[in-house]
Amino acid sequence: MDLNANERIEDLQLKDLRIIQNTEWFCFGIDAVLLSDFAEIKKNSTVVDLGTGTGIIPLLLWGKKEPKKIIGVEIQKEVADMASRSICLNNLENSIEIINLDMNHLNQIIPLHSIDVVVVNPPYVEFNGGNVNPKSNKAISRHEISCSLEDVVRVASGLLRHSGSFFMVHRPHRLVDIFCLMRKYKVEPKTIRFVHPKAGQQPNMVLVKGVKAGNSELKIKKPLFVHGEDGQYTDEIFEIYGMERK
Amino acid sequence: MDLNANERIEDLQLKDLRIIQNTEWFCFGIDAVLLSDFAEIKKNSTVVDLGTGTGIIPLLLWGKKEPKKIIGVEIQKEVADMASRSICLNNLENSIEIINLDMNHLNQIIPLHSIDVVVVNPPYVEFNGGNVNPKSNKAISRHEISCSLEDVVRVASGLLRHSGSFFMVHRPHRLVDIFCLMRKYKVEPKTIRFVHPKAGQQPNMVLVKGVKAGNSELKIKKPLFVHGEDGQYTDEIFEIYGMERK
Repeated sequence: MDLNANERIEDLQLKDLRIIQNTEWFCFGIDAVLLSDFAEIKKNSTVVDLGTGTGIIPLLLWGKKEPKKIIGVEIQKEVADMASRSICLNNLENSIEIINLDMNHLNQIIPLHSIDVVVVNPPYVEFNGGNVNPKSNKAISRHEISCSLEDVVRVASGLLRHSGSFFMVHRPHRLVDIFCLMRKYKVEPKTIRFVHPKAGQQPNMVLVKGVKAGNSELKIKKPLFVHGEDGQYTDEIFEIYGMERK
Repeated sequence: MDLNANERIEDLQLKDLRIIQNTEWFCFGIDAVLLSDFAEIKKNSTVVDLGTGTGIIPLLLWGKKEPKKIIGVEIQKEVADMASRSICLNNLENSIEIINLDMNHLNQIIPLHSIDVVVVNPPYVEFNGGNVNPKSNKAISRHEISCSLEDVVRVASGLLRHSGSFFMVHRPHRLVDIFCLMRKYKVEPKTIRFVHPKAGQQPNMVLVKGVKAGNSELKIKKPLFVHGEDGQYTDEIFEIYGMERK
């Protein structure tokens, strides 16, 4: 396969899956890996990944949970094109579809309340102009330029069937916004898990599960620590990455 | 001092403070101790403790932070009477006042938006009838019979001055309700801290700080672990209780 400038192929160390990334654009991080592990997905489900970027989450979900169908939605044309080429590279065109579309227009092509699971690793940072170039790829992936947190939750709610599940990773300092928006759009927060760099430190990520039209009762899972006292990944992170300790 | 039936005096191990408790009623627990430690209170402030019960929180706050004035509000006449006797026992009538009133009627005696800090260790359990006797003292302290979570937040919001602080301890499974109600009544959640029985376990309490008309940005403090691997209290709990390790 021919690669474009700045592209490289990475081995995902999972069922021989490989992904194309552009070193100048946003590259996937541990957030996507943790979200793919956190998401509970049954084999016969249809999944939508909002803002799929490189397509990392569809690939990991396919590798780990083999759902029937995964649709990755990406607003940036060149990024969606690269993700589509990654799907071809893995011969997964029958299982994973990449759609180049603004998620706010998804209702034109996916029927309302037809999806079992929505996952999303959205831009974390509120956009207030500043020094950010709103046309850069990295900025669109990181900042709420083309979609706000409210867009994400509203679109997910429209896609999900009754009792369908929503899985998101985000920053803990937005948790009040997250809970209030989820409740506003009837995607009740059911489980959260905080991710801490180390045991004695504040969390820097939060994994959130919501259920469409669910009852109000939140479960808070035990904290996930990324590094141990020795500075190495903890056993749980090794397990999530499917890596062996050296 | 003469005690009523089932009453006993307990030494709080803090500045010679003592408290009267009735062994048949709700006795204070670690929640009240942790909340009193978590609450940030300046010396010149006026504090209201909603649902003060035995008066434990006013006594601990006075012992730890010496605010100018603390008003404890308790709906149950006989419980409020016992709390008043505890205040007399400690000669703190000039610093702590116990008011026997339904918190929903507080606006009749405390001017709107005049209070610096509101603290509350409310009933945790939603009331749905069941096997609970709604007239029992314990039930009123534990279940949302005489006040709901929404009452607590609405009353606190009415009491607090602009930028005044709200401190509450509650159960983590109510966190979505807590955040959404606080935002509804413009008491923005600013800091939370989860309390875990042990390091590897789910939290069973959450400490919440809100600020009246505050900006939206939540800080999540590092977790508080009550017991260590050895089953003993952790150093931090020893410190909060002001106890020395034996």
